[in-house]
Amino acid sequence: MRSLRCIAVDLGGTQIRAARYTVDGVLEARVGMPTGAQESLASVCQRLKSVIRQVWPPEIPVAGIGIGLPGILDYKRGVVLRASNLSGWVDVPLRDNLLDAFHVPVFMGNDAHLAALAEHRFGAGRGVSNMVYLAIGDGIGGGMILNDTLFTGGHGRGAELGHMTLDVHGPRCHCGRRGCLEALASGTAIARRAQERLERGEDSLLRTLVDGELAQITAQEVGIAVQQGDSLAQAIFAEAGGYIATALVNLMYLLNPELFVLGGGVFRAGDAFLAQIQEAVALLAPDNYREQTRIVPAALWEDVGLWGALALVMMELDL
Amino acid sequence: MRSLRCIAVDLGGTQIRAARYTVDGVLEARVGMPTGAQESLASVCQRLKSVIRQVWPPEIPVAGIGIGLPGILDYKRGVVLRASNLSGWVDVPLRDNLLDAFHVPVFMGNDAHLAALAEHRFGAGRGVSNMVYLAIGDGIGGGMILNDTLFTGGHGRGAELGHMTLDVHGPRCHCGRRGCLEALASGTAIARRAQERLERGEDSLLRTLVDGELAQITAQEVGIAVQQGDSLAQAIFAEAGGYIATALVNLMYLLNPELFVLGGGVFRAGDAFLAQIQEAVALLAPDNYREQTRIVPAALWEDVGLWGALALVMMELDL
Repeated sequence: MRSLRCIAVDLGGTQIRAARYTVDGVLEARVGMPTGAQESLASVCQRLKSVIRQVWPPEIPVAGIGIGLPGILDYKRGVVLRASNLSGWVDVPLRDNLLDAFHVPVFMGNDAHLAALAEHRFGAGRGVSNMVYLAIGDGIGGGMILNDTLFTGGHGRGAELGHMTLDVHGPRCHCGRRGCLEALASGTAIARRAQERLERGEDSLLRTLVDGELAQITAQEVGIAVQQGDSLAQAIFAEAGGYIATALVNLMYLLNPELFVLGGGVFRAGDAFLAQIQEAVALLAPDNYREQTRIVPAALWEDVGLWGALALVMMELDL
Repeated sequence: MRSLRCIAVDLGGTQIRAARYTVDGVLEARVGMPTGAQESLASVCQRLKSVIRQVWPPEIPVAGIGIGLPGILDYKRGVVLRASNLSGWVDVPLRDNLLDAFHVPVFMGNDAHLAALAEHRFGAGRGVSNMVYLAIGDGIGGGMILNDTLFTGGHGRGAELGHMTLDVHGPRCHCGRRGCLEALASGTAIARRAQERLERGEDSLLRTLVDGELAQITAQEVGIAVQQGDSLAQAIFAEAGGYIATALVNLMYLLNPELFVLGGGVFRAGDAFLAQIQEAVALLAPDNYREQTRIVPAALWEDVGLWGALALVMMELDL
């Protein structure tokens, strides 16, 4: 068993990456290439098989292949129902396709679900039975470990943490509802809020950071401005952090988890945002819930997609 | 095994009820007496033991005792941390207390959690793997079955569905936050909203229903007025139903359950409220989620507390 290897694949909109790990989680090989998402489905599948072959010399026995991708999956049937950033990926029987090519078990997962699994197995959530992973980037996604198991819901569409309505009268979300967490506190929402306030003429370092090109502002710039003491940027982080705290407290009441793990691009700008969130949770959550739930930053960053795909294979094969 | 019996107890703020069931769920005996919640803890415990003895003749072999109560429990240690409507119930080691008296396994659960379990095992949720039970009465509570198992969270405090913030700028909730579901759509909130609008002078049948005593209005009267075509009452049900629908759609995104079971006193006034909720969900939920999730009324009413306590024993003893 120890001589077996696992193949992990992170199929993203811009890069496909693959790696070979031992079942003890030791990385042995890793490659990447552009996804070419604008090309045909068949061509992306070709590249996918090619990266797998690059990390898998024929003489090495492999226990299984895990693949994470940004999409909605039918976990039971191994079908990609729809994938963001991969055009034409509708009802793709990816598992059978790869099974035919490689003749080892193939497992697939939504990338945010697998990031949760990765943090639980290899990162900030080790040893915890119930945790929620929240990824705050351009959008907001997440994954949940409940009773030590990845929970994806009845049809694999659970943990869509970005679409929790927090303000029924709030800004319209692309999902059609109002005041979803994603519309209030994603990187995109933070950037838009900054732009709006600067357009109204408010004073801020942000203007100089982007040479007056307000459309260039992202949550990263807001984070940089916060670190430099900019009060507009601080107010925007406080507002978004308040919404995230409200969502976390909702989840405390609902799932009473031991741990929240916060990841995603918005946290790359430093710890200021995390601190805002922790502070707001302290004000909103009842003592007993707050004391039972830690809020920590993600431990895995660059390779979280690969770690997640590996964790999926290990979970499914009970390794 | 078939000759074994289970004892189920429903310890409420006004009544203690106990029943004896066969392990096939056949009711053999049932008694009830006033809780006497204003009396001492010791006296309530005495009554509790007394109702158990009344349904348990000494010659009958019993597999276990299940108890549901309206409180926050430490499931692992079998301790009542706090109970609503039972004064002085703080850190009560109820399980050990009953174990000493009866020498059979004792299991305890929060009443809303157990109602979910009862609906899953004996009621509207039979055969479903993932369901959420929402109880809308004076307050709002609930329970969740995830992956065929009662999920109560890391420390047994999960499924507090009433404290999901839906409107950060909404009315203050008794928990200290704003715009929780309970503050917007509980029986208490519905009644308060009706009173407010009548006090402002709006016209409605409700005024005659309570002989002008606006303080007498409850959600029941609002339901009766809806059935009689009263437009103010209809507007209030539509508003509250919209909030509940928003909460259900949040839960669809989060847990992607196959089923919502709606119970609690507010639904006793007829089907109008359920219809409002289903209509609002149809407008708010994306097609794929809506098609995967049914919304049905609870099947168990009067005895749901006893069925839940029975289901708990059967779950824990794998009967």
